[in-house]
Amino acid sequence: MTSVKPSALYSDDERDAMLAALPDWRLTDDGKAIEKTFRFSSFNAAFGFMTRVAITADAMDHHPEWANVYGRVDVKLTTHHDGGLTALDERLAKAMDAMASSSGVK
Amino acid sequence: MTSVKPSALYSDDERDAMLAALPDWRLTDDGKAIEKTFRFSSFNAAFGFMTRVAITADAMDHHPEWANVYGRVDVKLTTHHDGGLTALDERLAKAMDAMASSSGVK
Amino acid sequence: MTSVKPSALYSDDERDAMLAALPDWRLTDDGKAIEKTFRFSSFNAAFGFMTRVAITADAMDHHPEWANVYGRVDVKLTTHHDGGLTALDERLAKAMDAMASSSGVK
Amino acid sequence: MTSVKPSALYSDDERDAMLAALPDWRLTDDGKAIEKTFRFSSFNAAFGFMTRVAITADAMDHHPEWANVYGRVDVKLTTHHDGGLTALDERLAKAMDAMASSSGVK
Repeated sequence: MTSVKPSALYSDDERDAMLAALPDWRLTDDGKAIEKTFRFSSFNAAFGFMTRVAITADAMDHHPEWANVYGRVDVKLTTHHDGGLTALDERLAKAMDAMASSSGVK
Repeated sequence: MTSVKPSALYSDDERDAMLAALPDWRLTDDGKAIEKTFRFSSFNAAFGFMTRVAITADAMDHHPEWANVYGRVDVKLTTHHDGGLTALDERLAKAMDAMASSSGVK
Repeated sequence: MTSVKPSALYSDDERDAMLAALPDWRLTDDGKAIEKTFRFSSFNAAFGFMTRVAITADAMDHHPEWANVYGRVDVKLTTHHDGGLTALDERLAKAMDAMASSSGVK
Repeated sequence: MTSVKPSALYSDDERDAMLAALPDWRLTDDGKAIEKTFRFSSFNAAFGFMTRVAITADAMDHHPEWANVYGRVDVKLTTHHDGGLTALDERLAKAMDAMASSSGVK
């Protein structure tokens, strides 16, 4: 995992472009975060996903706010250091979508 | 992991005895659940704890409602099937306390 | 996860039927275990799989012997208690195959 | 997690200093790797440890060769890129020892 460059707050245009490219992610009311709910067939599947996200997030040093009950995982991403959305959030959101849709088996 | 017997809703006395034996767990306002916040020195430590809880909870077929951000894990336990607190909640709460305080190394 | 009934050693016919239904699993030379190598696109994917297997295995109280390096997971299954292969091994092998091929997303 | 500088093969003196500071780690016969066996009170505890190591290792982009059965975790560390032991191995070994001995609870 390569190191992550310092982030910069997205402009409104950058934010809108990010949202257009991230299906089912929505902007929070204050415009400072994005949210998505992932649904899995079991707790087992949900937690396998969470483990993959945990590994990715810690390597990025960019951590989600998330909640889980059974097969459901609610995620909120924001860059606290910058007070809003940055490229780190877009990168983690894309990684989460990829990990939710594939087991990674060869 | 032995199988778990059907649970039965705790009486007020059973609930109070459980709370007296579970440090830092608190009853929710509606009296139907218990909550606790665990704090760890890092996301890594918090997620290691969550993984241990996940393994235990799925074996019990009794899952927490929980949220995480960085080193913090907020947990809520209730037995949905019975509409309140049962021996399953007490057992999982005790297991969580034990796993939070020990790495299990020999 | 329902509790698991006591296992009984598979007859040669039962063992052969199991192997016929488990693609890419092979019998060890001593005939007492089955083995398979799983390959994933990354360490992240491999460890997500291992976490799902860990949750399932501990609930069954039937644990794999396994090794990992990067995206590769080598698994050996046997029932030590019975000195050979039983329905527990078949059940865990099938669960591993299912978890390797699906992320479980809805 | 800060990014990791390119590693360089340890001299014999550096290697001996590392081993002196790493209790219960031993040099492999070829002198190119270090090994240790960790023992935990349960599979649950062993896998919680492995999850913490997985998060740390992937952030370092330096992965263990490891095997697990029940509460036992056998670890071998080497730096394939350099054909022997480097500061990456020392760093990961120290992190593993720290994670084995503490749950990280505050």
